[in-house]
Order: sequence, then C-alpha cells, then structure tokens
Amino acid sequence: MIVGLGPGPAEWMTPEAAHAIAAASDVVGYRPYLDRLALRPDQCTHASDNRVEMDRARLALQLAAEGRTVAVVSGGDPGVFAMAAAAFEAIEEDPRWLKLEIAVAPGVTAMQAAAARLGAPLGHDFCAISLSDNLKPWGVIERRLRAAAEGDFVIALYNPASRARPTRIMQAFDLLRGMKASTTPVAFARAVGRAEETLQLMTLGDADASLADMATLVVIGSSETRLILRDGARPWMVTARTYGVRR
Amino acid sequence: MIVGLGPGPAEWMTPEAAHAIAAASDVVGYRPYLDRLALRPDQCTHASDNRVEMDRARLALQLAAEGRTVAVVSGGDPGVFAMAAAAFEAIEEDPRWLKLEIAVAPGVTAMQAAAARLGAPLGHDFCAISLSDNLKPWGVIERRLRAAAEGDFVIALYNPASRARPTRIMQAFDLLRGMKASTTPVAFARAVGRAEETLQLMTLGDADASLADMATLVVIGSSETRLILRDGARPWMVTARTYGVRR
Repeated sequence: MIVGLGPGPAEWMTPEAAHAIAAASDVVGYRPYLDRLALRPDQCTHASDNRVEMDRARLALQLAAEGRTVAVVSGGDPGVFAMAAAAFEAIEEDPRWLKLEIAVAPGVTAMQAAAARLGAPLGHDFCAISLSDNLKPWGVIERRLRAAAEGDFVIALYNPASRARPTRIMQAFDLLRGMKASTTPVAFARAVGRAEETLQLMTLGDADASLADMATLVVIGSSETRLILRDGARPWMVTARTYGVRR
Repeated sequence: MIVGLGPGPAEWMTPEAAHAIAAASDVVGYRPYLDRLALRPDQCTHASDNRVEMDRARLALQLAAEGRTVAVVSGGDPGVFAMAAAAFEAIEEDPRWLKLEIAVAPGVTAMQAAAARLGAPLGHDFCAISLSDNLKPWGVIERRLRAAAEGDFVIALYNPASRARPTRIMQAFDLLRGMKASTTPVAFARAVGRAEETLQLMTLGDADASLADMATLVVIGSSETRLILRDGARPWMVTARTYGVRR
C-alpha cells in the first residue's frame, strides 16, 4: 500500500493510513517520514534518502513480491507530487509486479493544510504546479505558469526552491508579474502543521521569492482572491465562489 | 470550525475532523452529510438543503456568536469547492463575526479519492475546475478549460452535470476534443468510497459525457497520462513524473 501520512501531525493522518502502517510487516520511506511513526519492534523499516523514489519503489515491490505486507509512506498525499506515480512507473519494469495487490491511501496534501490555515484561498478553480525541473524541462513549467495566469487560476506552487535551483521561484514570480496584477495576494506557507510552521502574506508585486524553501508551499491568488482584514490577527485569504462581483 | 468529512467512509475522515465534531454543541450542514455522523443526543443538528451555503454559513456564525461551539460540516475538503469560501464570505457581512475564533479542518477531497483508486493520475501538474455555472459565467469556465489544455495540465472536473445543466460536461468535452489528443485517457469516478462506487476508463475521443452526474468526478489526462494494462483488472491510470520521455 502506498500511504499518505498527511502534512505532519497525527490529527491530519487518516485512519486508513494509520491502519495500513499498523498492518505492515515492512515500512519503506524517506527517513524523516519514518521518524514520524511509532512502529513496533517486529516491523522492519527501510529508510532512504530523498530523490531516490524509483529505488524506494522497486524495493517495496520486491518485498511485496516476496510475500511481505509493505507500506510505502509519503508525506501529504502520495498521489500529489509524491510516491504513487514513482511506484506505478516501477511496476511496469517487471511483469510479476503487475500481479501484486496494490492500493493507494490518499492523504491531506500541503496545499490543503496551507489553505485551511489561510482561510479559503482554494475555494474556486485552482492548479498545482511543481517548480522542480529535475524531471521536466523548465520550458514546460513556464508554459504551465503562463496557462495558469491566462486561465486566472489560483496557483499552488510545490517545490518552489532548493539549494540546487534557488532562483526558479524568482523566475516564476517574474513571469507571473508580467501577467497578473501586482496587488494579487500571495501566501508563503512553511511546514504547516509542524512546530516550525510559518505563514506570510504578501502581494505579488512585493513578494520576496527568496524567502521560499523546499518546505514552503506558495499560493498565488486569482483575480478573485482577496484578503479579509482582522484586528490583531492575520487577514483571511479567500477566493470567492462568485466570479466577477467585485470588478 | 469548518470541518471536512472526506469523501464518505470513516477511514478517510481525519482525527481532527472527528474530534471537532465530537466537541461541537451544534453541527450545521447539508442533510446527507449530517446523516453520515454518529452524533450524541446532547448535540443539536441544523440540517439544510443543498445550494444554500450562505444561509448555512450565517446560521453557523450566528450560533457561534451566541457562544455555541459549532462545527459546519462539508463533504471532502471544505476548502475545495465547498463550505470554507462561503463561510468567509458570510463573515464579512457582520463585523462582530470577524472576531469569532474560526478554524478550518482540511479533508481528503473527491479528486484525491478518485486518484487513489485509479492509480496516480494526479502525479504531475494538475488543475481542478468546477463546471457549475451557478456562480460564474460559462465564458470563464471555457477560458479555464482552454488554458488547462494549453498548459497540458491533468484536469479534475467537479460538478460536471446536474439536472439544471446536463449539457455542460458535453460542451466541455467538445472544447477539449478540439485541443487534446483523442487518445487522452479519461476517468469517470462516481461516489468513490461509498457503496455505489463506480470507476470507468475511456478515451477523450470515445467518452460518453452524458454518463457523468453530480456525484461524478471526471479526470482528464495530460499528454503524459497513460494506462498500465493488467490481466483481469482495470488498468492503472498514471501521469508520469518525467516529462516527454514517451514522445
């Protein structure tokens, strides 16, 4: 089973995910995700580094083919920029793996956790784009950013920056500034649900893209996204359900 | 608290949502969602019809302003085409409501449940579009469908049809057929997680859009989405993480 742990806290992990982990003989995953879990001594853990998704998927399939009950764990939702796609790509490599009983346990993904804290920024049509260009050309990312702006979608950006490519998010903001109002609300939501959670609201015109790191989820509003100001508290960020009322 | 119940089964409801409902003096929601919950006799329920989101939000805020502990329940994730946006729109109507302590509990939304059953169709950049034109002009929906095709996003369509507008999904498919390959995989996922769950795979060229109803979530692939065939089972629908390898 390919299992989504949610963004961090146990209160955001589904019962299905918790049961799948408890039922597993072997738990495979990126080390920080395994460290979150309270496993029993009789359970085998197989920790790996980041960016070795295919190796991790093959190991899990090999163990399952040997008759083990395997949980491959993923932060957030394994179906959203996470382990599920890697696992199915690996399944094609060996015809025996196609006969395994595979299931996916969905989970709350980072943009949903960020949206819950911010108000309702994803309350209307939106898109999710990974800025990682490890596996796709930057040109494809630019094409998608342009299309997202042309369609006036709310945009959730995953993997906005890394040590290897710190400037991708700045390039993305530069592209979007040429197409969207400078007053467009932007949120940087970092490590939502964990002790180091931070939330910052800006405008597209003022946003300092260099603040984003790999633990940051960036939400860029549509033309309908607005802030609701409060006394002594962060404004709510909301994308209205009704289109065009304020213009 | 604006609470997401997930797509249906208890195994997909987060502990946070379960705790929020247990802690509530009053539970407000669309009747079928309230019917899913095992509430105590001391809890007040306030059931309403569909399409009265603003009335429901105002009632919940009024009760909270009276000092009640209120859970407003929503299917899926309240932040995705659901109650959170309506609640924040209502909050603006009365300055006293802005001082209430409001929180959102995210949940697994329909496209994630559908994706988990199908394989990994949302494994790469995707967008979510509601085809409901109750609150936005059809022209905005067409603009977003075109942008989604131009950006080669995987597309999740919410609210694809209703008795009031049965032909919207057909118009959407006609538009997309002019822009995307007829071999593009399409899935109709209906009532995922509930007893009446059905999953159907088609191609964009062959898809009979009239099969979609309000309980259906439609997933339309990108150019990278493919089917992995299995003996005696439904193929897996997967959007590869690596762009352009197969072309």
